[in-house]
Amino acid sequence: MPLTIITVKTMSDKILLAHGSGGKLTHDVIRSFLAALSNPVLNRLDDSAVIEPGGRLAFTTDSYVVQPIFFPGGDIGKLAVCGTINDLAMVGATPHYLSLAFIIEEGLPLSDLERVVASIKETTAAADVAVVTGDTKVVNRGTADKLFINTAGIGTVPSGANISGHNARPGDVLILNGPIGDHGIAVLSQREGISFATDLKSDCAPLNGLVAEMLAASHNIHCLRDPTRGGLATTLNEIAGQSGVSIRIYEEKIPVREEVSSACEMLGLDPLYVANEGKLVAAVAPGEADSIMERMKRHKYGQDAAIIGEVKEENPGRVVMKTRLGTTRIIDMLVGEPLPRIC
Amino acid sequence: MPLTIITVKTMSDKILLAHGSGGKLTHDVIRSFLAALSNPVLNRLDDSAVIEPGGRLAFTTDSYVVQPIFFPGGDIGKLAVCGTINDLAMVGATPHYLSLAFIIEEGLPLSDLERVVASIKETTAAADVAVVTGDTKVVNRGTADKLFINTAGIGTVPSGANISGHNARPGDVLILNGPIGDHGIAVLSQREGISFATDLKSDCAPLNGLVAEMLAASHNIHCLRDPTRGGLATTLNEIAGQSGVSIRIYEEKIPVREEVSSACEMLGLDPLYVANEGKLVAAVAPGEADSIMERMKRHKYGQDAAIIGEVKEENPGRVVMKTRLGTTRIIDMLVGEPLPRIC
Repeated sequence: MPLTIITVKTMSDKILLAHGSGGKLTHDVIRSFLAALSNPVLNRLDDSAVIEPGGRLAFTTDSYVVQPIFFPGGDIGKLAVCGTINDLAMVGATPHYLSLAFIIEEGLPLSDLERVVASIKETTAAADVAVVTGDTKVVNRGTADKLFINTAGIGTVPSGANISGHNARPGDVLILNGPIGDHGIAVLSQREGISFATDLKSDCAPLNGLVAEMLAASHNIHCLRDPTRGGLATTLNEIAGQSGVSIRIYEEKIPVREEVSSACEMLGLDPLYVANEGKLVAAVAPGEADSIMERMKRHKYGQDAAIIGEVKEENPGRVVMKTRLGTTRIIDMLVGEPLPRIC
Repeated sequence: MPLTIITVKTMSDKILLAHGSGGKLTHDVIRSFLAALSNPVLNRLDDSAVIEPGGRLAFTTDSYVVQPIFFPGGDIGKLAVCGTINDLAMVGATPHYLSLAFIIEEGLPLSDLERVVASIKETTAAADVAVVTGDTKVVNRGTADKLFINTAGIGTVPSGANISGHNARPGDVLILNGPIGDHGIAVLSQREGISFATDLKSDCAPLNGLVAEMLAASHNIHCLRDPTRGGLATTLNEIAGQSGVSIRIYEEKIPVREEVSSACEMLGLDPLYVANEGKLVAAVAPGEADSIMERMKRHKYGQDAAIIGEVKEENPGRVVMKTRLGTTRIIDMLVGEPLPRIC
C-alpha cells in the first residue's frame, strides 16, 4: 500500500524544512517510515540499534545520488538497498542489517518519498535484510537534488570464507553473471533530453542469493567484485592491482545486450566502463568453474553467466582484452567522468 | 600534516566530477584518505570491511549537512565523528568502527576537503575509533551544498548494560553534563549575515569517554540521550513518550551560558530547543546520582554537570518546567524549524 505509507499531517504535500528539525514533523515522518519498515530492533528508536549477529562481520557503506531518482527497472531506494547488500555479498557475507539515512531537498513531493520507501520495503523483504536504524535530514531548496540516500550494512562472514580483491591467483577463471551496461544506459535513457526507443531496464538486483548459491557450490571462490561505477574495466583493474596479477579477457565472451551496444555506439561510450548494479565478477579456482557456473545458471540473476577470461602472472596490475578482431588491447581504469550520478 | 594529506594529481585545486567516477581520480582521492585514516581493515579496500567485534552490538547512522562546514569549535568532519560516536554511547556501547561517506559538490576546494579529513583523523584518534569503510560521491555544482557526510558506527554493548529511551523510571534523577545551546548558537553566529561579538564555540565532542566513566560509577543508568536537533526539550519529550513517564525540570538548574542566553533573546530562540553536540541527559537511579555526578565532574566533558530534574509517574508523556518565577510551564516538542542545517 505505497500510497498509505506516509501519513504526515501537514498542510503541504511536499517536504518542509521542519520535517528535518528533529521535532514534531520529523517524528511524524519517522512514524511513517516505521509503518513501512517495522521490525523489533528499528521500532525501539534508540540512538543506536542493538543487534547480536556474532562471529566475523562485514561492514560497508555507500551513498546514492542517482539522477533521476526513478528510472526503468528501479529507483534510488531499490538501488540503495541492493548496492549495499551487494557490497556485503562481495566479501562472501550474508547481509542482515541496514542503516538508512535520507538527505531530502525541501519541496520533494511526499508521494515521491512514499514510492521510494515502498521500494525499500519491497527490496529489503525480497533480500531478507532489515533496516534497523536511520536518519532523516532536510536541506533548503537548491542545496541538494531531490533525494540522496546513504545505507550502511552489516553481514556475517561464514567461517572458512576468505574472499577479497587481494586473493585472485594466477590460473583463476573469471566468471561474469550476465550482460554489462544495462544500469548505466537505462538511467541515461531516462535523463532529460536523452531518450532511446528501448525497453532496457536497469539490472539493479540484490546478489546475496546468487552468492550464497555460488558458495554452496565451492569454497574456492577467491575474489568477488560488483562492477558498479567505472564498469567492468575499472573493477578488473582493481582486482589486478590489489592481487598483484594480470587479467586477460575475451571481447567475444563478454555478454552485452544489443540495445546497450547500439546506445553506447551512439553516445561514444564503451560498455566496459558503464555502471552495473546487479552484476558480479568472480575469480575462482579453475577446477571449480564448471560446478559454480552450473549453479549460477539455475539462479535468476545468473542465467546468462559466462566465463570471460582468466588471471595471469605476468605484468602484474595489467588488464588486457583480446578483441573480436584478434588484436590485444590494454584495458585501463576509467579516467574522467562520462556518466555522473549514475548510482 | 593536513596540507599534505591530499595529493591528488590534477590540473585543478578543486574537486571535479571525475573525482566521483569510480575511476582513476576516485582512486587518487581514496589513496589520500587512506594516508590520513590508515588502519589494517580500511587499507584492504574490499567492498566491505571485515571485523570481529563479538557480543551484542550497537549500530547507528547519521548524515551531517551543517552549514557552514567550518564553525567555531568544529567542522562537519568532527561533527560527523562525534555525532555517531555519541549515538553509540547513548545505548552504553563502546564505539569501535565507523563508516565514512562523502557527498561532495563539484568545485569544492581540495583544501577544504583536506581540513575536514584532518579533523576526522584527529577526532577518531582522540576517541579511539577507526574508520574501516567508506564511499565518495561527487555531484554536479548546484546539486549539493559543498559537502555532506554520512557516518555509520558499530560499538559493543557491555554485558549487563540495558540503557534505552524506554527505560526511564519514576523516581529517576535527570543529569545534564553541561550548558545547553552552545552548538546551535556557535553555528548560527558563523552564518552569513549573522554575527555576534562572542568567543562562543560549539560543544561538539565525543562523549564515549564520559559515558564509560559514568558506567564505571554505576550500573543503574537507565537512559541516556544526546539533545542534538530539537534541543533538550525535544529529547526530554522523547524520553517521556518512550518510557511512558512524565518529566519535571527546574529552569534555574539548567546551565546556559550568558552568551547563549543573550543571543537567544536577540533571535527569539529558546535555549531548550537549540541543538547541542557534546551534551547528554541521563536518567539514573536516585541513590546513585551523587556518585555518578562526582565521576562526571572529574571528566573534561562533565565538569559542569548538573541535576536538572526528575522522572515522575503522573501524566505520562508530559514534560513540565518549574520556571524561575515559580510558575509551571509545559515543555512541548519542537514544532517547525527555527535552525535548519544545524548538524
